[in-house]
Amino acid sequence: MDYVVALDVGGTLVKGALVTREGKILEEFQLETRIQRGADDFVKRLGTTVNSLVAKVRGMGGEIPGIGMGVAGKILTKEGKVVFSPNLMPLNGYPLSLGIKEKTGIPVFMDNDANVFGIGERWLGAGSKHENWLGITLGTGVGGVLILNGERWQGDDIGFVGEIGHTIVYPDGPVCNCGKRGCLEALASATALINGAREAIESRRFNTVLQEAYDRNELDAVTISRAAEKGDELACRLFRRFGNALGIAISNTFNLLGITTCIIGGGVSEAWPRFIDSVWNTIKTVNSMVDPGTVVIKRSSLGNRAAVLGAARLAWLELEARY
Amino acid sequence: MDYVVALDVGGTLVKGALVTREGKILEEFQLETRIQRGADDFVKRLGTTVNSLVAKVRGMGGEIPGIGMGVAGKILTKEGKVVFSPNLMPLNGYPLSLGIKEKTGIPVFMDNDANVFGIGERWLGAGSKHENWLGITLGTGVGGVLILNGERWQGDDIGFVGEIGHTIVYPDGPVCNCGKRGCLEALASATALINGAREAIESRRFNTVLQEAYDRNELDAVTISRAAEKGDELACRLFRRFGNALGIAISNTFNLLGITTCIIGGGVSEAWPRFIDSVWNTIKTVNSMVDPGTVVIKRSSLGNRAAVLGAARLAWLELEARY
Repeated sequence: MDYVVALDVGGTLVKGALVTREGKILEEFQLETRIQRGADDFVKRLGTTVNSLVAKVRGMGGEIPGIGMGVAGKILTKEGKVVFSPNLMPLNGYPLSLGIKEKTGIPVFMDNDANVFGIGERWLGAGSKHENWLGITLGTGVGGVLILNGERWQGDDIGFVGEIGHTIVYPDGPVCNCGKRGCLEALASATALINGAREAIESRRFNTVLQEAYDRNELDAVTISRAAEKGDELACRLFRRFGNALGIAISNTFNLLGITTCIIGGGVSEAWPRFIDSVWNTIKTVNSMVDPGTVVIKRSSLGNRAAVLGAARLAWLELEARY
Repeated sequence: MDYVVALDVGGTLVKGALVTREGKILEEFQLETRIQRGADDFVKRLGTTVNSLVAKVRGMGGEIPGIGMGVAGKILTKEGKVVFSPNLMPLNGYPLSLGIKEKTGIPVFMDNDANVFGIGERWLGAGSKHENWLGITLGTGVGGVLILNGERWQGDDIGFVGEIGHTIVYPDGPVCNCGKRGCLEALASATALINGAREAIESRRFNTVLQEAYDRNELDAVTISRAAEKGDELACRLFRRFGNALGIAISNTFNLLGITTCIIGGGVSEAWPRFIDSVWNTIKTVNSMVDPGTVVIKRSSLGNRAAVLGAARLAWLELEARY
């Protein structure tokens, strides 16, 4: 049996798996990214891991014909190059695909992490029955992917696509990680929740149970979600703002593309009950084109395996197309 | 020689032409829409016009194998039905394609007016060398069209697509024709210019040369454009707001779709020098993904023939696909 090596490269961890053409996982593994040691060291360690997997699969009479990777950041897919990745700075401008191919002799296929999330959900997850949809990953930032005619849309292959996180929702809104104002990411991400809580606490505008986490410098999305669950006014407001911004961005995409389906994943989607009502209220009130009765908004069904499975699918598809 | 009849159906006029497979125009004609007389009367008059063209073309030894139409409004292309058209109310819910086919015996292919604008510019105009682009028509309202992989994107065929005019740019902005707030159309259309001027004059916030046109109830986009050309402060402000909103909507589309080309037409695009600098300033300042150096923003090159030629192309393409 043949397998591809599928890798989901994040700022902290690389999640990996050996995956069959049908999407069966033989085994999963993790390694620490430790990108601060440099790109060469990273490629060397990845190469060693892959080579030991090759030995193992060969021992079972199989082959590893390809490696699929999802990497957070601006990616030139055709060149296999990371253009810019805020959480993986040493990889900026680095020919990552080529490096791994040199260490392993195996072709590497790479795309942005949100794009492989979309490919995974389209293959085996919540998007498998939908031809056209918007995928959103809610995490530290906000990623996006478009599945059009059943395939990931690649645009002009200029290093980014599906960047709904950096569409502007409130032009006069809060400053985003990217330096601009009012992006979806500045309103509907872990960073947005944390910054929003911090500012409100520092301006003493709210009595909030989050004060304690703030004092210990431990404000995070999970804490804010728990506070909202308990009815904390500040936390509830932050999630309403979150859901409202998400609803506007989703509506705008639906109006532009004439589609009605959105699939949402990423770690912060765990807080689903905190924001989904605001998303629906917004879609129902701000939008004149889409009939809300036709709208489908679903959670990812592959959870934290979506990107790994998507990276595997990317590799299998590219191998089929090329060989 | 064979020709299709191409029709661009607007609220006031129907512009028409006989067009060859290569896009040569044999003759152009116009009739008044007069939709207040009802849909049946409209179809009857169109049918008479088409039938006289058929006689003429047959006299020259040719045939008319199809009719292509662009109609302002929400259109179900496959069913040939107008779902909703604010300027052609009697056509709402009317099976327009079927009606004309019954009068003429010729198959009818219909799409939204902005979509046929896009098809026309892609075929013979400013978009002929670009595979992926956003088209915008600036008029009483704002229409939009997406050309993806060289063809008009049709979405889920739910009656609208490319509706950038009803993407929300300023959620707290002015009320739009559609009843919602802060749509692009509420900021960057003839209606937006006129309403903006009227409100400012009525609140006596400006000394403006537009006062006279206001007093005569003759405020229109041309008058406001001329005032801006002469440096009138209110008119200049309205066009800056116009360009800023357009720049945000274009940036958002580029970020979402990973594309860099936009082609702008429609009557109000005649005021190009009044708003294009604000569009560029906005794209350069609000947007973190697209490199402004790669951005192409062009004016329509077919002018007011874009929609007629697009309707012709639509018919030829559908005829090729079907027969």
